[in-house]
Amino acid sequence: MEKVFVIKIGGNVVDNDNLLQFFLKKFANLPFKKVLIHGGGKIATEMSKQMGLEVKMVEGRRITDEATLKVITMVYGGLINKNIVGKLQSFNCNAIGLTGADGNLISSKKRPIKSGIDYGFVGDIELVNVDLLTTLLNANVSPVVAPISYEKKQGQLLNTNADTIASVLAIALSKFFNTHLIYCFEKKGVLRDVSDENSVIPEISHAAFQELKEAGAIFEGMIPKLDNAFQSMQSGVQALSIGHAENLEAMVNGEKSSCTQLLIK
Amino acid sequence: MEKVFVIKIGGNVVDNDNLLQFFLKKFANLPFKKVLIHGGGKIATEMSKQMGLEVKMVEGRRITDEATLKVITMVYGGLINKNIVGKLQSFNCNAIGLTGADGNLISSKKRPIKSGIDYGFVGDIELVNVDLLTTLLNANVSPVVAPISYEKKQGQLLNTNADTIASVLAIALSKFFNTHLIYCFEKKGVLRDVSDENSVIPEISHAAFQELKEAGAIFEGMIPKLDNAFQSMQSGVQALSIGHAENLEAMVNGEKSSCTQLLIK
Repeated sequence: MEKVFVIKIGGNVVDNDNLLQFFLKKFANLPFKKVLIHGGGKIATEMSKQMGLEVKMVEGRRITDEATLKVITMVYGGLINKNIVGKLQSFNCNAIGLTGADGNLISSKKRPIKSGIDYGFVGDIELVNVDLLTTLLNANVSPVVAPISYEKKQGQLLNTNADTIASVLAIALSKFFNTHLIYCFEKKGVLRDVSDENSVIPEISHAAFQELKEAGAIFEGMIPKLDNAFQSMQSGVQALSIGHAENLEAMVNGEKSSCTQLLIK
Repeated sequence: MEKVFVIKIGGNVVDNDNLLQFFLKKFANLPFKKVLIHGGGKIATEMSKQMGLEVKMVEGRRITDEATLKVITMVYGGLINKNIVGKLQSFNCNAIGLTGADGNLISSKKRPIKSGIDYGFVGDIELVNVDLLTTLLNANVSPVVAPISYEKKQGQLLNTNADTIASVLAIALSKFFNTHLIYCFEKKGVLRDVSDENSVIPEISHAAFQELKEAGAIFEGMIPKLDNAFQSMQSGVQALSIGHAENLEAMVNGEKSSCTQLLIK
């Protein structure tokens, strides 16, 4: 099967003009089929403030009310997405920006109220239209996907976790391509010692992850990320790496110690 | 050649929730290949105000400075475009939202400073990538195009007139399809008497247009619209109608007096 890279970048790249530019140039030059998923970053929060909106949090989670959804649609679906696409075109990478509504790419269900918490316009993904992705990839077009899905029945856009979108797209593509999912984040990989940036674990099995988790060596935010990552591999994704956007090329080339690679078994 | 409809809607539809919903349902149900181009409407102005930006006008024309371009990218490329796409999907029309940067659809040049006026980030169109449009149309996907083009070299997004975008897309498609361009606006068509909404001219030739213009019977904003429309037909567009979004179905079916139809000769 042909190779496809599904690469996710978050706020630490999107919010940093120089790093974003550097990353997009490297992404554009990858001689492979590729999909980019971007998160939101601080721009949505700044925009909400500028518009005089209140950021609502319940138990540390942002609530997507109607006004926030509007900001997300503008910032993620418009500003960030279209500027990334423009930059990629300037680097001769034919990109196309998409939300889950475009081409019916990612349909979801509005999250039901759980334990009294109404998350608002947040989507839990139900279905990926992989045909559109393969059509675009086979035409040498790189999809750039914003973290927005939608409920088809009402045409309702829904705020959706970018890590989850990257995971479901990679799982859907893994049936047709040898799919390598890469999560870029603020560290060089999973660290054995959180205080030591150079203690990157080059390879980690699910068993080793469980051990490190029990020993308290893996820090908080990393746990759901890795849980989700191992689940993607169990659902068919052929390779998965976690590392820093700066090291994209090395990660794609599979250079040892450029990131953390997950082991299937 | 197979038929394609290229349909442009402006602020009077985009700003009116009920009319937009009505129009999108009719558009979704058209049993033809189709492209939708939407303008901006008041939402960008309202958003600019909410963000505390000043609307800069020079000789009645809006100047697109950096902050305004940001609003346009958010509102046209994100908010309006993605909500239209979501609604069309809910009406079982497989739509995909695009700016000129997506798939390198519409490249342009930043307008040079003319007679001392710097319009800012405004694009004059140079090239349309018709391959992307035909690929999507042949896959039964309806492109929904926001009034944004881009300069490829820098990946710079540029604010662009929606009427012009509709025209260049229709001209490009007219080489491969029997292309019918429909401009929806706030009147039922070109009026013989501006004060009488029912004085729609059902058919107008270029010669008749010149006569009416000289007689002062055609009102101001209509002149550039018709100049542009006749030029589209001279450049290959097979049919062109101007009318109200409410009458979309009748215009598509070519019902007499549902709108103004332009005559080629």
